[in-house]
Amino acid sequence: MFPKDGRTTLTVDDIPKRWYNIAADIGSPAILNPGTMKPVTHADLAPVFCKTSVEQELDITHRFIDIPDLVREAYAQFGRVTPLQRAYHLEQYLKTPAKIYFKREDVSPTGSHKLNSAIAQTYYNKRDGTEHLTTETGAGQWGSALSLACNYFDLDLIVFMVKVSFEQKPFRRSIMETYGGRVYPSPSNVTEYGRSVLAKTPTYGGTLGTAITEAVEKAVTDPTGQTKYAIGSVANHVCMHQTVIGQELIAQLNELDIVPDHMVACVGGGSNFAGFAFPMIEKKLKGKIDTQFLAVEPSEVPSLTKGELRYDFGDSGCITPMFKMYTLGHDFTPSAVHAGGLRYHGMNPLVSEMYNNKTINAVSYSENQIFQAAVTFARTEGIIPAPESAHAIKGAIDLALEAKKKNEEQIIVFNLSGHGLLDMNGYENYLKNCKDPVIRV
Amino acid sequence: MFPKDGRTTLTVDDIPKRWYNIAADIGSPAILNPGTMKPVTHADLAPVFCKTSVEQELDITHRFIDIPDLVREAYAQFGRVTPLQRAYHLEQYLKTPAKIYFKREDVSPTGSHKLNSAIAQTYYNKRDGTEHLTTETGAGQWGSALSLACNYFDLDLIVFMVKVSFEQKPFRRSIMETYGGRVYPSPSNVTEYGRSVLAKTPTYGGTLGTAITEAVEKAVTDPTGQTKYAIGSVANHVCMHQTVIGQELIAQLNELDIVPDHMVACVGGGSNFAGFAFPMIEKKLKGKIDTQFLAVEPSEVPSLTKGELRYDFGDSGCITPMFKMYTLGHDFTPSAVHAGGLRYHGMNPLVSEMYNNKTINAVSYSENQIFQAAVTFARTEGIIPAPESAHAIKGAIDLALEAKKKNEEQIIVFNLSGHGLLDMNGYENYLKNCKDPVIRV
Repeated sequence: MFPKDGRTTLTVDDIPKRWYNIAADIGSPAILNPGTMKPVTHADLAPVFCKTSVEQELDITHRFIDIPDLVREAYAQFGRVTPLQRAYHLEQYLKTPAKIYFKREDVSPTGSHKLNSAIAQTYYNKRDGTEHLTTETGAGQWGSALSLACNYFDLDLIVFMVKVSFEQKPFRRSIMETYGGRVYPSPSNVTEYGRSVLAKTPTYGGTLGTAITEAVEKAVTDPTGQTKYAIGSVANHVCMHQTVIGQELIAQLNELDIVPDHMVACVGGGSNFAGFAFPMIEKKLKGKIDTQFLAVEPSEVPSLTKGELRYDFGDSGCITPMFKMYTLGHDFTPSAVHAGGLRYHGMNPLVSEMYNNKTINAVSYSENQIFQAAVTFARTEGIIPAPESAHAIKGAIDLALEAKKKNEEQIIVFNLSGHGLLDMNGYENYLKNCKDPVIRV
Repeated sequence: MFPKDGRTTLTVDDIPKRWYNIAADIGSPAILNPGTMKPVTHADLAPVFCKTSVEQELDITHRFIDIPDLVREAYAQFGRVTPLQRAYHLEQYLKTPAKIYFKREDVSPTGSHKLNSAIAQTYYNKRDGTEHLTTETGAGQWGSALSLACNYFDLDLIVFMVKVSFEQKPFRRSIMETYGGRVYPSPSNVTEYGRSVLAKTPTYGGTLGTAITEAVEKAVTDPTGQTKYAIGSVANHVCMHQTVIGQELIAQLNELDIVPDHMVACVGGGSNFAGFAFPMIEKKLKGKIDTQFLAVEPSEVPSLTKGELRYDFGDSGCITPMFKMYTLGHDFTPSAVHAGGLRYHGMNPLVSEMYNNKTINAVSYSENQIFQAAVTFARTEGIIPAPESAHAIKGAIDLALEAKKKNEEQIIVFNLSGHGLLDMNGYENYLKNCKDPVIRV
């Protein structure tokens, strides 16, 4: 009678003890210093990130990196191991023979997977002597997570929040402030770059690229050298921190004795996809499994499906290094879609490389399509997903309907990267204007 | 190293199989028909509630009532058994020798304990042939839960949401609509009572009592007889449904081999307090434990601490029966505190009776005090509590500080009845105006 499979018995003891650094298996394209067009050195990155973050970002030799005890303790405190749950009611509604599972990163107190890297980066910054951190945030999931982590490890934090999201999701700012973070809408008037953007276009709604420039500028221009920058996605070390998701998932799948036919996650900068998929991709690279991996992005920000693989800046103001990645151009301004966490012009270089060599696939959906999937999921499973995560849901639903056509009992696992309780503006707009709120089958 | 105690091993198999009906142990004062001033009969209540709800409301003989399989299945689907967690970081921050635990009703997809009764009432209404349900909601927690439950069991729903909360928490409405509920601000113009209130005071912000009148009127005036009313608190059968909380808690406390010195919950209509405490109170009545029980209410709505124990109407429009309860008068209009779920003039008759005979204690706090406790909790434990639940937190913190003065290693358990992610308006106002956001020790 009870939905038991998916409720595995993992406990805090099963929180992974190491992060998986896939760069050691597949290599990583060099990050370039735009001044010299040569690979960046540790010294190049030292003004931006704390020492350990730099080491991890450039590490292509260690396949596994031990997770410090205090980080694992914080993971436990904030809800890891996260559940793997079966979407029985969604399956029934779709009348599909497919079995759909989802990994619940929404159960974190800040509402998404972002705490996995926020805790790690904050811990290392504290240990390496940082006193102040700066960061960017889109929808506010990353900013919320870093605010909580900074409070936990007693660090000061300034967040540059993309202005479009600042206005769409006012309560995300209140959450960051509740945790003690200070928040500016970006472009802001507290950085040179922000002021220059505002001078050109006073009403500019911002992008993640712009917010990154502001946060990095704020860090590197602190004359005391005790301000560093923390990044929410895109970078290799962030993707590595997120591999706790995929490692837990493997243990949970083993316990259920199943192997997914498809694994699906949304992509903005790439970190939740990477964390979810990389540990399984390792198995695929070794020929142990034949799972298909699907990255889902907004058709309004189609970096994988319509972008170009080349070296580009990580930010709009061109003050970061250059990454070899699928990019829409660092000056690309996407429309104000509610999936603010996916409004980024580029893509993590490792995810880019794997899309290029066809290890993974990608697909894009419009905002209307993903909200239809979101409401369908909310009405069947009860959980209101983040618009970002709704991309993964839409991808999973389409695969389940495909399986239905072929009458195949496929196993589909997606990453529910976060909940949408702070995104109700988007739901409200959608419900007001949609013809039919849910997917009909 | 890891915060293990409080992470008990209960699974879906441990979801209670029966609700505990404390009225069978202590009796329940008669509910009066205001027309005759005689005890209400099943026939009196039949136009309002479905058959089974009426039976449960008036049942003072069965100590336990079996939970139907489909209800238990829905409990499992939506996150029961809920965790019991230890507040290590709050303890450390307070420098108290007390051990503080909290039961996490916030993990439900609709964000509070309210689903426990929403699922039960919706199931019975469906089984008893109801086609449409009506209800009231304050902060929106109950309305959200009933919207999801009605979608789950395929029933139509109309929600009357207290206008003050409708305006303070706009996104709660979007959540109900996402689940398929229809929402009117109360007083509304779709009932006779609503129109009469608006005619007198067009700007009236409403109360739970007013919204109840509207919802009941809407149900009983349906000429087809297929519309019934469901209630979110106050009534005995609602309190009984909530006893899954306290029964799970007892199993969890047994597993940890601890007995609380204090158990603390907030009170509005009384259902989360009742569900949390009644199963333990049963043990106390039998002399098995010596736990103290504390009900915490807003000083702006002090029904227990400043109200009067007498017969009063359950609603403002005087169309419900009369209950023997602590009341501030059915026409009492509390100020627009953000704890909208606690803005009720009366108190469940069983909770009232136990306060009267000193089985339980009560205390009240101001809105400022509870938000200070809420931010203290958010910064230490990471979870942003509902303003309602923050009353319980403040109560627990004060007990922990008391224990510190006496240097006693007391065990304090409180009910975290819900999260506050849809209440950020309240946090924002508080943070803007407060002198110090957190409690200092």
